[in-house]
Amino acid sequence: MVENFKIRQLKITSPFWQRYQKMVAQKAIPFQWKMISDQEKPEVTSTTVAGGASDTSSAINNLKIAAGKLKGHHHGMIFQDTDVYKWLETVAYSLKNYPDEKLKQLADQVVDLIADAQAPDGYLSTRYQIDTPNLKFQQLQQSHELYSMGHYIEAGVAYYQSTGNKAALTIAEKMADCIANNFGQENGKIHGYDGHPEIEMALAKLYDCTQNKKYLTLADYFVKIRGTEPDFFSQQNAKNDLKDDPFPDMRQAKDNYFFDDRPLKDEKMAQGHAVRVLYYLTGAAHVARLTNDKELLAATKRLWQDITQRQMYVTGNVGQTAVGEAFTCDYDLPNRTDYGETCASVAMTMFAKQMLASDLSGQYGDVIERELYNGALAGISLDGEHYFYANPLEIDENSQFNPASSHLSMRRLSWFSCACCPANITRLIASLSKYIYDYNDKDKYILLDQLISNQVELGNGIKVEVKSDLPWQGTVKIHFSIPAGEELNFKVRIPSWSEQTSFKLNNHEIKMAITDGIASCTIAEDAELEMNLDLSVRQITANPLVVADQGKVAFSRGPIIYCAEEVDNPGNYAAYSISNNSKLSSEFESNLLGGVTTLQVDNAQYSEMDKLYSKQADVKKQKTTMKLIPYYAWANREKGSMHVWIRQSED
Amino acid sequence: MVENFKIRQLKITSPFWQRYQKMVAQKAIPFQWKMISDQEKPEVTSTTVAGGASDTSSAINNLKIAAGKLKGHHHGMIFQDTDVYKWLETVAYSLKNYPDEKLKQLADQVVDLIADAQAPDGYLSTRYQIDTPNLKFQQLQQSHELYSMGHYIEAGVAYYQSTGNKAALTIAEKMADCIANNFGQENGKIHGYDGHPEIEMALAKLYDCTQNKKYLTLADYFVKIRGTEPDFFSQQNAKNDLKDDPFPDMRQAKDNYFFDDRPLKDEKMAQGHAVRVLYYLTGAAHVARLTNDKELLAATKRLWQDITQRQMYVTGNVGQTAVGEAFTCDYDLPNRTDYGETCASVAMTMFAKQMLASDLSGQYGDVIERELYNGALAGISLDGEHYFYANPLEIDENSQFNPASSHLSMRRLSWFSCACCPANITRLIASLSKYIYDYNDKDKYILLDQLISNQVELGNGIKVEVKSDLPWQGTVKIHFSIPAGEELNFKVRIPSWSEQTSFKLNNHEIKMAITDGIASCTIAEDAELEMNLDLSVRQITANPLVVADQGKVAFSRGPIIYCAEEVDNPGNYAAYSISNNSKLSSEFESNLLGGVTTLQVDNAQYSEMDKLYSKQADVKKQKTTMKLIPYYAWANREKGSMHVWIRQSED
Ligand SMILES: [Zn+2]
Ligand SMILES: [Zn+2]
Repeated sequence: MVENFKIRQLKITSPFWQRYQKMVAQKAIPFQWKMISDQEKPEVTSTTVAGGASDTSSAINNLKIAAGKLKGHHHGMIFQDTDVYKWLETVAYSLKNYPDEKLKQLADQVVDLIADAQAPDGYLSTRYQIDTPNLKFQQLQQSHELYSMGHYIEAGVAYYQSTGNKAALTIAEKMADCIANNFGQENGKIHGYDGHPEIEMALAKLYDCTQNKKYLTLADYFVKIRGTEPDFFSQQNAKNDLKDDPFPDMRQAKDNYFFDDRPLKDEKMAQGHAVRVLYYLTGAAHVARLTNDKELLAATKRLWQDITQRQMYVTGNVGQTAVGEAFTCDYDLPNRTDYGETCASVAMTMFAKQMLASDLSGQYGDVIERELYNGALAGISLDGEHYFYANPLEIDENSQFNPASSHLSMRRLSWFSCACCPANITRLIASLSKYIYDYNDKDKYILLDQLISNQVELGNGIKVEVKSDLPWQGTVKIHFSIPAGEELNFKVRIPSWSEQTSFKLNNHEIKMAITDGIASCTIAEDAELEMNLDLSVRQITANPLVVADQGKVAFSRGPIIYCAEEVDNPGNYAAYSISNNSKLSSEFESNLLGGVTTLQVDNAQYSEMDKLYSKQADVKKQKTTMKLIPYYAWANREKGSMHVWIRQSED
Repeated sequence: MVENFKIRQLKITSPFWQRYQKMVAQKAIPFQWKMISDQEKPEVTSTTVAGGASDTSSAINNLKIAAGKLKGHHHGMIFQDTDVYKWLETVAYSLKNYPDEKLKQLADQVVDLIADAQAPDGYLSTRYQIDTPNLKFQQLQQSHELYSMGHYIEAGVAYYQSTGNKAALTIAEKMADCIANNFGQENGKIHGYDGHPEIEMALAKLYDCTQNKKYLTLADYFVKIRGTEPDFFSQQNAKNDLKDDPFPDMRQAKDNYFFDDRPLKDEKMAQGHAVRVLYYLTGAAHVARLTNDKELLAATKRLWQDITQRQMYVTGNVGQTAVGEAFTCDYDLPNRTDYGETCASVAMTMFAKQMLASDLSGQYGDVIERELYNGALAGISLDGEHYFYANPLEIDENSQFNPASSHLSMRRLSWFSCACCPANITRLIASLSKYIYDYNDKDKYILLDQLISNQVELGNGIKVEVKSDLPWQGTVKIHFSIPAGEELNFKVRIPSWSEQTSFKLNNHEIKMAITDGIASCTIAEDAELEMNLDLSVRQITANPLVVADQGKVAFSRGPIIYCAEEVDNPGNYAAYSISNNSKLSSEFESNLLGGVTTLQVDNAQYSEMDKLYSKQADVKKQKTTMKLIPYYAWANREKGSMHVWIRQSED
């Protein structure tokens, strides 16, 4: 079956994103390889900051030991293998953007190594194979075995789809078969699930690739069993040997840490470890669509609403506490103590993408865009070799003294003992082309969800070229080449930040109806659609129930959320405020931070008071100017304080 | 030597404080006795809230076991004995306020029991005597042995001074002798100190009572050695058996938890466990005065300034984090996640009292007053049988979901597994008469530091009677009876909250110069001084560097800090704000909460918005009214949210 409206090929032409994809190809991928293959020690690490200090990764060495090519013990996190898999997945996507024969050879060798490390039955977890083979699948609360194999399956599918390397897919299928042989509702199998969701979305992707129903059935099984056997972990733990307990502390975690204290259909609020929740929801939304399970889809949508409308930072970051790297509750969004793991923002992007595929609505693309330009993107430095694990909304030198904020850092680190985030943000950047369009063959439409310059060709020969200088300028020109006899139902998400959007078709002003954030038109011949988005600087107010943001404002322009860094705004960040008399201006600075539009606030105030408590009249205010830069670009210059939400003065 | 200006006898006549002292005598002392002697199970406890859940105390039983009158093991905290000692100290003070022969008999028996439990060499720690006698003084980082004996010494001195029971003092002297035999700079003695300061102030008090120089020398030794041997604890720990480690987790605590990472003279900022810091500083200030040690006094004053001007909540509560029950750093005063242990507020009061005795300045009495009417007093319910361990500045149903606030509670508990706070607040209330005056015989003055109605007679026969209805009304009349030939330099603290204070002497308006918060005059014959304090409702603004209080206001009237409780202000507390148009009024409600002046805010606002983030114009505001009650009286009605800092609307 030819899918007429499927994306046949897509090329990103956006200078903003080309630069990032090139950086991933040329800087991040080689750097991450040096880290996971222990060719270099990380330059910047920290024992106090989220993610932990790294000495050597051993991720490649662990695979070599499991493959019998080296002797020794497993080193690193129990899921250290996944650092290799996410690197491989990044490579898979990146090779499509920037072909690189030497890199492909290296990646092929890694695939061969993984094949050698894989047990004959398809099992692969180097920690268990090397050190505790008798405990395979016996410590699922903490073992991350399905999580690890899930990450490989994602990587294997991506690498096969990108390069045609069949061995990469075979490893994934063998893993999935191993898991199917060990888990399921049949007698004699384990009626359980992994402490860390991931396998659900991996199996759904494997089904998409292979169309093998068995994998979809297994994905559906893992989605549905979670929360129905709340004692599963404690029963398993009671049986096995405490001496090999990988994370003794985790036994004390609340049930909701594992997001399994009730089935998803009964879950009202996101609680527990944010990445677990979001990986699970991504898998659940994917499975719900593939199985047309309305109840499951409704449940994922309910959680989507809770997270995006009540538990998400304005940057798109999620996870409000370092304790359990977790969600807390509705409207609890403290800025100085947030967690906002880079992985959680990447996961939000994946979750949004899955929701969009079932539910044509602008809100999903709005969140994808928020993550791409802010929450997720802040996880990587402009040089591609430094990463945030947790992403602060507000930090200064004093943050280290409060245990609720001492996990946050004013600079990105080279590597982590738990190095989940670096390759997660790079695989997102490298796979950006997957996030630009949604399409539906039955309804003959494509949806331009992300307004990122690109050239695309559909299955039926229709070509679309999108040209813009977003995020810095608001004009988007879309050129359509329509072969004779073809017709396109073209949809485009109008970002919620654009309060006024005008449209021209072939240079004539037209009106386009916008439904749920999406505009539609039918294009039957070659045409050019021009959109002018409103890039005015916006002052964002948070819901009054968000105590931490009361009396404060966040600035945005287009998709970009801004922040104030100490290097531009000397002194104590808390002393700055804007007033009703403040004047805003914006300017593109091509030599700053790789080229960014900065905001200037004139008539801002710098407030001081001698006493700790006194009266308003005792506050001394000086007129000053503030300069704001995009949040994603912070911490690429001199180390210092940063804050997103800026106080609004009473006068 | 007759001290002419020393307080010979003092009677508190304030209705406000008489009610509290009577409640301690009639309700709290009998209730606490039932708890520590296991005659009743606590009705309200919690496993998640600070202080921990209590089943049985065993505090009296532990003493009986150590005395050989019962068999069994020690139960409870390693410093469980102190619950008995602080109860005894409360009784000592309370018997002066409300003589009670039966209570005195019970307390005499407790003294006898303690004497029986004391080892022949003076040592007393039931936990070590019963279960680990070979580890005496070997685990000082965690053992609380000197802390426990220090609490007894305070109690023994107080009980002796109140009742003349000589045995009570003898126990204290034997303990101090035992400690002197084991600690000090001489060869063969332990060159170390307790993980939890307390012995310093106890020994200084014992010196005040006995004038035995040895105790002052030992107090000075403990004050000075702290921080000079930073490896002392780890060296001791390395030697002894880990199996009997009372608090294994505490070994990981940072050095600053014990407030001993450097000597006090080099310490710039209060960090670490708040009660430890404050007990230490109280002892250090006391010793500095007794030894006329200027450097030590300067150091205590530097820390005083840091705490009161940069690390104190507006209620007087201190300790910003539950992690280590600790200070964090300057201007870091988050409201929803504070700790504010009741013991820390009691300790602030004691610290202030010691500072005042060396440094005639109004700031100390201001803090004592702040604690007496707010931070410390909130620790006890109006019925005398329920207590806060940690005192929130802001709490609602959602606080339980964030680990940084889950130690806080919306209701007071009956008892705790670590029951340090209940008898600490009761001993403070019962000993209130110690806080009303300071005096100086050389300069022939008395300072009326706390404007609490009282009748006092000095050593030289001068009588002073203070009459007021503070904290509710601002007129204070002071009547002096001066025997012929006597003269009094009378000083009175003018509270910093009284922006305008007028004075009349014998009904004629006079001016009084106010220096550093203190007014002075010479009284040579019978006279009446009338002061009219400004009890206007005040809107307090925090220093701009306190992020959590930005754009917010706290209300006070006289010494009372106000808060809003959900029972008076339904809905979500965060939705409330006041505006520039708000009108304030106050009213004394005799039937509410034992009689309180409440505040009413008309033209307040209740704000709602559909979205999580939008623009200011999307906020829907409704006019509403707020009612505020004194902070100390909160959580005595229906359970619900509470907050002190109220948002100030932009309009
Ligand atoms: Zn991560
Ligand atoms: Zn306490």
